[in-house]
Amino acid sequence: MKAVRPSKMSNHVAAVVGVGPGLGLAVARKFARQGYTVAILARNYDRLMKFAEHIVEKEASAQVAAIRIDCSDPKSIKDAFEAVNSLGSVEVLVYNTSTPWPWPRPKFLDINAESFERNLNISCVGAFHCVQQVLKGMLERNKGTILFTGATASLRGGAGFSELACGKFALRALSQSLARELHPQGIHVAHVIIDGIIRTMFWPTTNNREGASSSEEEKKLNPDAIAEAYWQLHIQDRTAWSQEIDLRPFCEKF
Amino acid sequence: MKAVRPSKMSNHVAAVVGVGPGLGLAVARKFARQGYTVAILARNYDRLMKFAEHIVEKEASAQVAAIRIDCSDPKSIKDAFEAVNSLGSVEVLVYNTSTPWPWPRPKFLDINAESFERNLNISCVGAFHCVQQVLKGMLERNKGTILFTGATASLRGGAGFSELACGKFALRALSQSLARELHPQGIHVAHVIIDGIIRTMFWPTTNNREGASSSEEEKKLNPDAIAEAYWQLHIQDRTAWSQEIDLRPFCEKF
Amino acid sequence: MKAVRPSKMSNHVAAVVGVGPGLGLAVARKFARQGYTVAILARNYDRLMKFAEHIVEKEASAQVAAIRIDCSDPKSIKDAFEAVNSLGSVEVLVYNTSTPWPWPRPKFLDINAESFERNLNISCVGAFHCVQQVLKGMLERNKGTILFTGATASLRGGAGFSELACGKFALRALSQSLARELHPQGIHVAHVIIDGIIRTMFWPTTNNREGASSSEEEKKLNPDAIAEAYWQLHIQDRTAWSQEIDLRPFCEKF
Amino acid sequence: MKAVRPSKMSNHVAAVVGVGPGLGLAVARKFARQGYTVAILARNYDRLMKFAEHIVEKEASAQVAAIRIDCSDPKSIKDAFEAVNSLGSVEVLVYNTSTPWPWPRPKFLDINAESFERNLNISCVGAFHCVQQVLKGMLERNKGTILFTGATASLRGGAGFSELACGKFALRALSQSLARELHPQGIHVAHVIIDGIIRTMFWPTTNNREGASSSEEEKKLNPDAIAEAYWQLHIQDRTAWSQEIDLRPFCEKF
Repeated sequence: MKAVRPSKMSNHVAAVVGVGPGLGLAVARKFARQGYTVAILARNYDRLMKFAEHIVEKEASAQVAAIRIDCSDPKSIKDAFEAVNSLGSVEVLVYNTSTPWPWPRPKFLDINAESFERNLNISCVGAFHCVQQVLKGMLERNKGTILFTGATASLRGGAGFSELACGKFALRALSQSLARELHPQGIHVAHVIIDGIIRTMFWPTTNNREGASSSEEEKKLNPDAIAEAYWQLHIQDRTAWSQEIDLRPFCEKF
Repeated sequence: MKAVRPSKMSNHVAAVVGVGPGLGLAVARKFARQGYTVAILARNYDRLMKFAEHIVEKEASAQVAAIRIDCSDPKSIKDAFEAVNSLGSVEVLVYNTSTPWPWPRPKFLDINAESFERNLNISCVGAFHCVQQVLKGMLERNKGTILFTGATASLRGGAGFSELACGKFALRALSQSLARELHPQGIHVAHVIIDGIIRTMFWPTTNNREGASSSEEEKKLNPDAIAEAYWQLHIQDRTAWSQEIDLRPFCEKF
Repeated sequence: MKAVRPSKMSNHVAAVVGVGPGLGLAVARKFARQGYTVAILARNYDRLMKFAEHIVEKEASAQVAAIRIDCSDPKSIKDAFEAVNSLGSVEVLVYNTSTPWPWPRPKFLDINAESFERNLNISCVGAFHCVQQVLKGMLERNKGTILFTGATASLRGGAGFSELACGKFALRALSQSLARELHPQGIHVAHVIIDGIIRTMFWPTTNNREGASSSEEEKKLNPDAIAEAYWQLHIQDRTAWSQEIDLRPFCEKF
Repeated sequence: MKAVRPSKMSNHVAAVVGVGPGLGLAVARKFARQGYTVAILARNYDRLMKFAEHIVEKEASAQVAAIRIDCSDPKSIKDAFEAVNSLGSVEVLVYNTSTPWPWPRPKFLDINAESFERNLNISCVGAFHCVQQVLKGMLERNKGTILFTGATASLRGGAGFSELACGKFALRALSQSLARELHPQGIHVAHVIIDGIIRTMFWPTTNNREGASSSEEEKKLNPDAIAEAYWQLHIQDRTAWSQEIDLRPFCEKF
């Protein structure tokens, strides 16, 4: 872990697991803007540091810690959350890992067993471990928010999508079981079904966007809009909690 | 129609159909607070006038029109929406009618056919008519929000709940068909599943709450919290629209 | 009513409501073959008589009664079921009405209100009335089977399909409410989601099939295969009842 | 593997993975009765041999092979299916593993990580491997049936049920992805949601049934009735295939 501005960390900690240049980064920035000490976690530490710098640049008072994690490895998760928990009590956990979208869609017989298991581990087993690392503190305070990022594949197993769908279905099950156990104890568990492509914010600056007209960008989910939805879930009055919401661009077929 | 402060109506009109002392009133008040001219519609005109007065009292600059409607009667809907449309372009339609919760749950053979049809009409056919009354303007402006209030019975047909469930399932179907047709044209259609009992705000002052401790009140949905969720749906960025969300108290079994 | 071979009716009566040249006819023939007195009901009486003759021709010992019904009219349903009930105790009710598939899909503003209501009545309110006409006898015997024909539109409200979907969603709700109330009393209620086009069996002999190759016919549901599924639902052991099954051709996208 | 009566194996092979004294045994017996060479697979080889003997005793001409398998271990699955495939082409695969029902329901923090992963592996990863072992042959023949046993926990993540629900949700996803890929190639994939307790057939003879009255037994699913449903799925006409059915006792609350 390398904490950016570690000296004046606030007591409110939000941990965002699975931070890439789209949704994860936007959510982290949103919670930083709202005064949370934000732990951002992902595998690629160099990129993570760039994200931390980006957040601090955009949000003058942001407090961000970049922490390496490999969600397919329980030991790595444990180590990472020791660092996270040292920042303060985790009030918000966002589990937002993603696994590569299979393209072209493989035939079932061509799916590699290791890849299949790895996807399941990253989508669901990793979430299991992360929740176990932060739940004790939430239960002591009878307070906390746990947000899971789902996808179209959370509801539908498409041809060629078994790797993605098995993991996302399992994550949805975890989200429901946790909600039913934890809501009465004051901990809000919600599952967000993202149905569409998410814009990447600034990273990579890249030439691979050259072909895309701005109107094609408009057809993708704005990560800041998703981050706003995550924030709204976090601040919902506890007499009216959402357990599952969907988010998709106005022009998305569904 | 008797418009309260009709002289300085804003151009933004929100029409809330089915306004009782709980959710409907809270939603109307929320949109009034946000600067909308609000049309509140229900069958009981006297009560509706009291609601209008209540809103104006609470929100100093509120512009409210109370309009009688019987959602089981297409002619009444047409008349009511002539009045609504005379206020300005309807930007937001909230369809929030409710039908009496059957208690004790009737045996199927004891359900009255007229009551069954009436429930279906109020839950779904009325919504069909109301949307038809406001949609033309929304399509011309490529802008608008249509919000439907669903219930647990939107997803599950329980024993003794066929009246409620048939209407609410049908309303959900309407919501999906409209969303798939209208989203690409800039009109946001969302369905909110309310799972739990809603607190009534002030009306009636009533003695039937005597038995309820304040902690029992805490187990019910706060209508202002629901209204906030409706408002958030309305202002969602169009690259990240929700089509369906659920809302329930933290302590609700589900 | 004009009963074919009324003299030697068996005690087991199966009533099939909504008999056209596809599914309804096949189900009626299946139950006739199994020794049931079958009442076939539809609006077009002439065609119904031809169906009755066809069944008797195919199944030597079949006992069939053709009875006119208009499922949008409660009075017509009541009259029809007086005739049905005079045949003996109804052990099986199949509700299989269909409403015209909207083509081209209408825009919502172009949907006629009468057409919308009529669809809802035929899909759901008619089912309500038919069940009320046969349920008393089933409850007295603690025995009976009620089968509802659903469609893709029972689960999904597509753009341009609000008429169909509202009715089919509502019918599914009815099916669930009835199952939860009646299963413990020995009456099996099941909902069958037909996802695909059904072959018509012989009627009309028609030239409109000229363009269809036999391989295109193979892509449609064989009504006899559907009828077999309905029969299997009827004879299921009561310790292992299905409430909902889907049926679709092997080549159908879903 | 120890094949019972290995000399006169038929060409039709049905492999039933996860054979205990309830559903698995009944399904194996059903397919044996219908002339299939049946491979029964489970971890406990001694018990498996007793099941094989039982089947042979009941079905005079049954051909049964008992094969040890540990579905949490890919190597064990591979070895087991080498034995299975040596019996002939697998036409039917039934994946019916179960994991211990958590009782009392554990709190989330008390769930052991190894147990969580193991459940996921047995419920879903094992199914992945088993299908990969038999699919090549099915694709060559454009023919085959793959049946998965689901549970209430396939649709709902209850409090305290995350282990079971994550695995069963994931299995359902696998079933859908396979169905969408394989149906057009002539291979039928179906998922059966068992909602209720299954009677155990004869094993153990046991004193733990002493307290159970026969009427309590009537409230449980008869495994032979489930086996009949599996058989019916197998013989469905390919123009009317079910992808998902539910089965529950008439008296089961749902």
